[in-house]
Amino acid sequence: MSDRPAVVLALPPRLTDDLLPADLWARLRAAADVDPTVNLQVSPDPAALARAEVLLTGWGSPVLDAEFLARAPALRAVVHAAGSVKGHVTPAVYAAGIAVTSAADANARPVAEYTLAALILSAKRAFGASHALRTSHDGHRHAPGAASGLTGGVVGVVGASRIGRLVIDMLADYDVEVLVADPYADPAEFGGVRGAAGGAGVPGVAGTGGATRDTSGCGCGCRCGGPGGTRPAGRGRATLVDLDTLCRRADIVTVHAPDLPETRHLLDARRLGLLRDGAVVINTARGALVDTAALTRECAVGRLDAVLDVTDPEPLPLDHPLLRLPNVLVTPHIAGVRGRELRLLGGYAVAEIERFAAGLPLRGAVRFGDLARIA
Amino acid sequence: MSDRPAVVLALPPRLTDDLLPADLWARLRAAADVDPTVNLQVSPDPAALARAEVLLTGWGSPVLDAEFLARAPALRAVVHAAGSVKGHVTPAVYAAGIAVTSAADANARPVAEYTLAALILSAKRAFGASHALRTSHDGHRHAPGAASGLTGGVVGVVGASRIGRLVIDMLADYDVEVLVADPYADPAEFGGVRGAAGGAGVPGVAGTGGATRDTSGCGCGCRCGGPGGTRPAGRGRATLVDLDTLCRRADIVTVHAPDLPETRHLLDARRLGLLRDGAVVINTARGALVDTAALTRECAVGRLDAVLDVTDPEPLPLDHPLLRLPNVLVTPHIAGVRGRELRLLGGYAVAEIERFAAGLPLRGAVRFGDLARIA
Repeated sequence: MSDRPAVVLALPPRLTDDLLPADLWARLRAAADVDPTVNLQVSPDPAALARAEVLLTGWGSPVLDAEFLARAPALRAVVHAAGSVKGHVTPAVYAAGIAVTSAADANARPVAEYTLAALILSAKRAFGASHALRTSHDGHRHAPGAASGLTGGVVGVVGASRIGRLVIDMLADYDVEVLVADPYADPAEFGGVRGAAGGAGVPGVAGTGGATRDTSGCGCGCRCGGPGGTRPAGRGRATLVDLDTLCRRADIVTVHAPDLPETRHLLDARRLGLLRDGAVVINTARGALVDTAALTRECAVGRLDAVLDVTDPEPLPLDHPLLRLPNVLVTPHIAGVRGRELRLLGGYAVAEIERFAAGLPLRGAVRFGDLARIA
Repeated sequence: MSDRPAVVLALPPRLTDDLLPADLWARLRAAADVDPTVNLQVSPDPAALARAEVLLTGWGSPVLDAEFLARAPALRAVVHAAGSVKGHVTPAVYAAGIAVTSAADANARPVAEYTLAALILSAKRAFGASHALRTSHDGHRHAPGAASGLTGGVVGVVGASRIGRLVIDMLADYDVEVLVADPYADPAEFGGVRGAAGGAGVPGVAGTGGATRDTSGCGCGCRCGGPGGTRPAGRGRATLVDLDTLCRRADIVTVHAPDLPETRHLLDARRLGLLRDGAVVINTARGALVDTAALTRECAVGRLDAVLDVTDPEPLPLDHPLLRLPNVLVTPHIAGVRGRELRLLGGYAVAEIERFAAGLPLRGAVRFGDLARIA
């Protein structure tokens, strides 16, 4: 054998072709000693596991507990081709000195893209306008609500998370004012002063996971948005404000906070009430961050619009009013990587293995302290 | 008076505050000798017109024929704070040596943004998936169609117009292959060879107005997308192909061609039939560019999806099947500037007046030859 590390797969078999299309397979095989016919999610292979130096995991990976690790004495790194490692990485992995890395960064991009699209179309009231076309001869001429487009508007980003920062970056190309609320964000990184005005100091209310690396831990392995310690600052174009101020000023509020006990109903009835008439709530993070009943009431009377890729509960019951409102678009948790986009995760993981093989630092490293903070 | 040019307004009174909010008013008054209480769309003012050097026009402007111009002997420029000048600029304007400029460039940006949003969400089958949530307990788990997101996909841009080029520019940030079809585009500007393969040579079929400046002339003064002679090339990331090849290869086709007799039903039943199963058609240009009946048939059987901001006829009858299909989003011609975004047009026009006052070339100049080609 060469000095290429021995890599063993534990990938979801149904998704492996999407995670590792031919070009990525070629890169993986160039960088690592890997047998494509071995996949621990298909069948155990004690011999392969015994000599594995790197485990390439994905959704549905076996739990890496002490018993598992005892059969993997050569293991030095777990490279996760998905977002959250919460489902399979246990403290025993860290105790054994094994490096852990995840592709949460890669997972963030499609969520930020979905968010941008939702911002553009909801600013134009596209969904309500589309519904009006079906129901009224006036639909063509009088789209409901003040439909101004993004230009000149105020976008409130709740959570300077990995995804929140990506959204802020993308908005740099748009003529909008961006506010960001995050009690852990570094005021030096953004304009404005954290917690400068009313409501910011309320303890435990707005823990959106800013400054440290945590919480790619969304449970489904996707995209509640770890804080993005590796991302550059949002080009300084966002102004850091407290959450109440953000709610009062934003035309559109988009939520990118982790799902923690203290972030439950971060947008509760009171804060939703602070939003101006005609404001839009976008949630691509976790349903529990928004008080569904309160949001439903506001949307039902037409005071707020919403684009919700996540809900609480999820899915909503078929007869839930949010599913019937023309000013609300609900999608079934599709903002993250899907189908062909899975190659983003595979590509990130392969690049990590290339770095591991070259002795370089891992970009997506998840530390033990982060793991403990995962919701 | 100073040497600032005498500017007279002929703007739609209902929209003037949106076209010229306070900051733009301040710039206009600094650059020009302008009386904000005079607006020829509100009431005539022969004295003001007699000394007007610049006419600042918008939708609904009076027609600038010989009779009008006889009352405006000092007129040297018409600055249009909207897209098309077809509605009010006549050959007499050019005969009098008066410069004409339009804000079609500024008008293009929101349309390109809407298109980008439609690309992102339709690639995820967001609209069909949203509908499935309302109708099936499986909606949450099984969104219809192959929903892969944009990544790794092929986007076909029909028309290297001003808007088409903007879309190509925006897609530079996405991991997609971009094809562009335009019989007038310069092959040297894009990769690929124009008209290299089947169907390209069909005369008069795909006149999308590429290399010369024309056709901001959409009739409603908005956004069929003049060719954008002032835009830089699409970063070389789009490959020029013939339209049939584009239809065969693209996962999503987005139309940005002018509405001319020879572009009617540019996407006809045959070309729609070339699209792969599950492909998406986006139209933000003009309804007549697509054969509505043929598209309806393809969408009704679920073979194609569509996002249509324009239709033929427009609006569609309330009982039109396109308005009922879960895999089709129809919006009422809202992709262009709206509400607060009107400041984009006003800002463009003010900048033109600043350039005029400074003796600089105008950015949005519309030449007589262009006018003659307007659909």
